Amino acid sequence: MPILSERSRYAVNPLEEDDAIAEALERKGREIIKLNRGDPAVYFPTPEYIKDAYIEAISDNKTHYTETRGAKELTAAIMGRYRRMYGLDLGEEDIVVTAGVSEALYMLNAALIDPKDRAIVFKPYYTQYIPYIGLAGGQEYLLDYKENDGWGIDVDELERHVKKLKHKARIRYVLLTNPNNPTGTVLNRKTLEGIVDLANEHKLILVSDEIYDEIVYNGAKFTSVAQLARGMPHVILNGASKNFDATGFRIGFAIVPEDDKVSLALKQKIADFASVRVSANAPAQYAVAEGMNNVTEHNRAIRKMVGEIEERVNFAVKLLGENRCLSTVRPRGAYYIFPKVDLKQLHFRNDKEFVDTLLKTKYVQLTRGSGFGTPGHIRIVSLPPKRVLGEAITKLNEFCRSKR
Amino acid sequence: MPILSERSRYAVNPLEEDDAIAEALERKGREIIKLNRGDPAVYFPTPEYIKDAYIEAISDNKTHYTETRGAKELTAAIMGRYRRMYGLDLGEEDIVVTAGVSEALYMLNAALIDPKDRAIVFKPYYTQYIPYIGLAGGQEYLLDYKENDGWGIDVDELERHVKKLKHKARIRYVLLTNPNNPTGTVLNRKTLEGIVDLANEHKLILVSDEIYDEIVYNGAKFTSVAQLARGMPHVILNGASKNFDATGFRIGFAIVPEDDKVSLALKQKIADFASVRVSANAPAQYAVAEGMNNVTEHNRAIRKMVGEIEERVNFAVKLLGENRCLSTVRPRGAYYIFPKVDLKQLHFRNDKEFVDTLLKTKYVQLTRGSGFGTPGHIRIVSLPPKRVLGEAITKLNEFCRSKR
Repeated sequence: MPILSERSRYAVNPLEEDDAIAEALERKGREIIKLNRGDPAVYFPTPEYIKDAYIEAISDNKTHYTETRGAKELTAAIMGRYRRMYGLDLGEEDIVVTAGVSEALYMLNAALIDPKDRAIVFKPYYTQYIPYIGLAGGQEYLLDYKENDGWGIDVDELERHVKKLKHKARIRYVLLTNPNNPTGTVLNRKTLEGIVDLANEHKLILVSDEIYDEIVYNGAKFTSVAQLARGMPHVILNGASKNFDATGFRIGFAIVPEDDKVSLALKQKIADFASVRVSANAPAQYAVAEGMNNVTEHNRAIRKMVGEIEERVNFAVKLLGENRCLSTVRPRGAYYIFPKVDLKQLHFRNDKEFVDTLLKTKYVQLTRGSGFGTPGHIRIVSLPPKRVLGEAITKLNEFCRSKR
Repeated sequence: MPILSERSRYAVNPLEEDDAIAEALERKGREIIKLNRGDPAVYFPTPEYIKDAYIEAISDNKTHYTETRGAKELTAAIMGRYRRMYGLDLGEEDIVVTAGVSEALYMLNAALIDPKDRAIVFKPYYTQYIPYIGLAGGQEYLLDYKENDGWGIDVDELERHVKKLKHKARIRYVLLTNPNNPTGTVLNRKTLEGIVDLANEHKLILVSDEIYDEIVYNGAKFTSVAQLARGMPHVILNGASKNFDATGFRIGFAIVPEDDKVSLALKQKIADFASVRVSANAPAQYAVAEGMNNVTEHNRAIRKMVGEIEERVNFAVKLLGENRCLSTVRPRGAYYIFPKVDLKQLHFRNDKEFVDTLLKTKYVQLTRGSGFGTPGHIRIVSLPPKRVLGEAITKLNEFCRSKR
């Protein structure tokens, strides 16, 4: 008799798999440069005005449960943010505050997916998307972001697959990550319009993970799915982790803006899930509310952080350009770089062997592309200061030179 | 085509179902006495020394992700607590910190339950247990706590059911809540020993939700399953919400103390689930670590709170004793009272009608026993000060008198 449930095999996280190797090296006194975890608050302290609001909430004894769908102050702040940024007129009942986007993904998949249902996901994908589909009994249907087209989406190809797949299985949603982790792509408005039209025509729910929506640079312009998908069921995922530089707060949210039959059922069910687990962390919610409401302070903080990120990413991309075994699409959002590795030239069987050997011999920790569904690549988190980034990429370049 | 997944119907919470009625009354200017949510931090502010540690963590920029299984400081503090209180020698790898016991329940059920598996749960149960079993595709197998025996467990009856059930289905675990919500029972050591022997004999995993393990009074003595279930697979659920009066922190934990084959697989899988969702709220973890480490301050705080709770519960029980349509087992742990209601004498069809009518006419919000699996009862949260409790129960008593 197996000890664990059959489905529990989906609960794995390739982003953490090399931590045991790194820890063993650290115990031997080695210093590891870790470019594997996308945690801005390690490198950019959470803005003071948000920390002050967090502290004030604790001092004011706001340490009990909040409303299950989120503290009214935070849902109001989210409504304000979406009105300001995207011209959306949300109601409280369109929003559920969650323990990070992770929890929103869990709720969304559990609410929609029955065994054998499919969800269309593009690869490379953020690793977390896959476990929650599998744990709900469903299966991802993977299409490629097009590396040759700056990791964009081929809408015609998507349409061909939707037409084929919809006769075989129930397609529960199409998932976009924009700006993208791990590629740094910002999808252009025209592509998004094409996807929205397609979803509308085929009655598919669009899910857009927009957790990096303010972290765009190199001239990119971000468009939210919520601006385009009027009158059709869609879900926007976002949170405090990235734009408000507050990963450790674990405050995310799901927004279902529309009031069609599907949207109404879905937003009520997500709220039911929220009710079952009572509430998200309370004082952090008030801090995030202030983070959104204090537009002056936020603009100052986000401009500074995004400016720094742009510089670091471009610096790293330039250094990577010296490496003849890598080819890199320059990111325009988030803070990841996702180069293709010429594994054959370097005599590695796969990207796992590449990142493990790099970690063990050069003490630089990256993540293998196959962990994001796209083998033959590596993901580099470009958050550390240039000195550290420079040292790590110099080592990576040396490593590749030595293996040719 | 149904909009939602078939299983999502399990995501419901009867504890919140009357909130809409209460809100409508409040909008009309009515003041509702709410005895439906067991949230101590509303009535007893979280201890200052814990709030100070929380604030310090924020000031120190501990606002990024922690280790996925929990910040090392907190897992160490949990190890210290269990050594001190129960003589347990835990390792870091035996512990996973979660976003409240809710998240631990989700992970546990998702890790163990395949479709058609059964979990033995006693009723009245804490409402949240049931959704997570159903969402994992399993089904609860319900046995009764014995009201005539102070809501204790009949171990012989449990054995008869285990013997019968195990030939028909896979029994994944037996779940105990000790001290109990909603009955306030503290199970005695002899009963627990009987259950441990039985679980051992039939190779069942014991799960013990001990979230109220320091909230015992009226002469009760608490025994942890971890003290008795040596050498056999078991899981202890606990957290900061109740003993550390910090519900809004959303910090829980699961402990799998043993190293048998089942325990090893289970604790690794719970850690995998934790890794998928990255981490619990960061600064709150450091606050809870201090909550546990500062034994002097904690003892002072918990004695004061439990002393107050004992007084309030006993005061409420005494007032309820004047009501000839209710019969009440006096609680010895937690802060709930779960009287049986003579619905027939009061001309109500069921407990839902009773609590709804009480709310609409007397503006007192309780929870129906059927929400906990035991119809014909009501749950009263005895946390508010005596003045408020007294007013609410006087209204309840008047209500019952008027309906006879």
